[in-house]
Amino acid sequence: MNRIALGLHYDGAAFSGWQSQPHRNTVQDHLEDAIERFAGVRLLTTVAGRTDAGVHALGQVIHLDTALSRTPFSWVRGVNAFLPPSIALQWAMPVDDGFHARFLAYERTYYYALYTGPHRVPMVHGRAGYLMLPPGQRLDVAAMREAAACLIGEHDFSSFRAAECQAKSPVKTMYDVTLAEDGNWLFLRFRASAFLHHMVRNLMGSLVAVGRGRYPPAWMAELLAARDRRRAAPTFMPDGLYLVGVKYPEPYDLPRADTSASLFHGVFADDRA
Amino acid sequence: MNRIALGLHYDGAAFSGWQSQPHRNTVQDHLEDAIERFAGVRLLTTVAGRTDAGVHALGQVIHLDTALSRTPFSWVRGVNAFLPPSIALQWAMPVDDGFHARFLAYERTYYYALYTGPHRVPMVHGRAGYLMLPPGQRLDVAAMREAAACLIGEHDFSSFRAAECQAKSPVKTMYDVTLAEDGNWLFLRFRASAFLHHMVRNLMGSLVAVGRGRYPPAWMAELLAARDRRRAAPTFMPDGLYLVGVKYPEPYDLPRADTSASLFHGVFADDRA
Repeated sequence: MNRIALGLHYDGAAFSGWQSQPHRNTVQDHLEDAIERFAGVRLLTTVAGRTDAGVHALGQVIHLDTALSRTPFSWVRGVNAFLPPSIALQWAMPVDDGFHARFLAYERTYYYALYTGPHRVPMVHGRAGYLMLPPGQRLDVAAMREAAACLIGEHDFSSFRAAECQAKSPVKTMYDVTLAEDGNWLFLRFRASAFLHHMVRNLMGSLVAVGRGRYPPAWMAELLAARDRRRAAPTFMPDGLYLVGVKYPEPYDLPRADTSASLFHGVFADDRA
Repeated sequence: MNRIALGLHYDGAAFSGWQSQPHRNTVQDHLEDAIERFAGVRLLTTVAGRTDAGVHALGQVIHLDTALSRTPFSWVRGVNAFLPPSIALQWAMPVDDGFHARFLAYERTYYYALYTGPHRVPMVHGRAGYLMLPPGQRLDVAAMREAAACLIGEHDFSSFRAAECQAKSPVKTMYDVTLAEDGNWLFLRFRASAFLHHMVRNLMGSLVAVGRGRYPPAWMAELLAARDRRRAAPTFMPDGLYLVGVKYPEPYDLPRADTSASLFHGVFADDRA
């Protein structure tokens, strides 16, 4: 058997998240169906990050084991031919049996695209979070940055954890939260050891509450200390959330995520190295 | 009666173009339905540019006459409440009776977004033209620029005119064709007095043929001189085409198109003034 790692993009708007479900309208179901048509046999996939309904991916990683011997290019072109337009493999790479898309991942990166203009903008519908501020009002991004700084480091993120979360521990390490402002846009980057269920969307809800002046930046530290989901703001909409990158230990030199075919093209300059 | 100019964005992927049709799945039908629900009466709209099926707009302009007296903000918010997610007004402005969205327009700008990466990219499906080049092959953008230079000035564009075109004359003036390369992307801007039916898509087909080395740049001048549609390349796909701007004479100082919620965010720096 050969173990293969695959990188994929998807527009999550039309799907009920990553994980296979009986109704079968999930990214995993569509992908495993396409792989079956390409490979002629059902192959089970293991994913790095199980994204929610409506959440997108520009750097999702999976692995599978197969007896089939094809070139990486042939895997990508072949499987893509059977996928719907909203899902596409971007690369394939042979890996040894020690590789595991989920258990070996030691860092994940999510981006969030938030539009704050006065009116709906159709070209990004379903692909950006949207905040319709009263005319003249703007988010206080400096306050949001101050709040975000409280998140850096190892913390118990229970206040930002969904009730259904299956993670063994609520303690994760946040390496980076970067906010990039550009006209009516606010782009956010979250880099952490791992994320709890709904964690980025829950963090977004509270960061936006700070940005709107409802709470001071130090409220974020209080929320962390409280370890109580009921204290934090509601879960923010999934539309603007993207799984962009997953990092693996040294021997596994997987291709970096390509954000150029997305709203994040050129936003975080250090991601384009 | 009050004459009002309205600016709108739409994602044309789901619609059979601008112009009203019996099956009613057009931008005009959806917009006039929404205006009727807002205004309580059917109002006919006049449009600057009748876009084809699958073509998008970031700077479409219409006008209508109404006895209703509402603030511009109320027009935008009110009508948007009844529009599908893929269509939205961006601004409204009272104009005098001398204004006419179509007949007074003296310049139109279209953009084209062309992706040339090795694999499909789901996040821009339906919103970008796509050219799957063989591995290692790239478009010769310098040759395309040379070909595009032939188009500048007043020309008979019959070689790039659809058979169904209803324009009185095939002679138009091209002011500017700009090509901006960025990784796997090629962004094009076409600015002209007016465009014939399918003209940008037909120009794209021939420019891409030059970019692939099938014809030398001077072929573009031969095509213009031939005034024969059969000599030029096939019509390129509508997915990457956007009506971005329409210019009117001095007294009508309409808001400029906002491209920030699109793939063109930051691409043509001089459009963001």
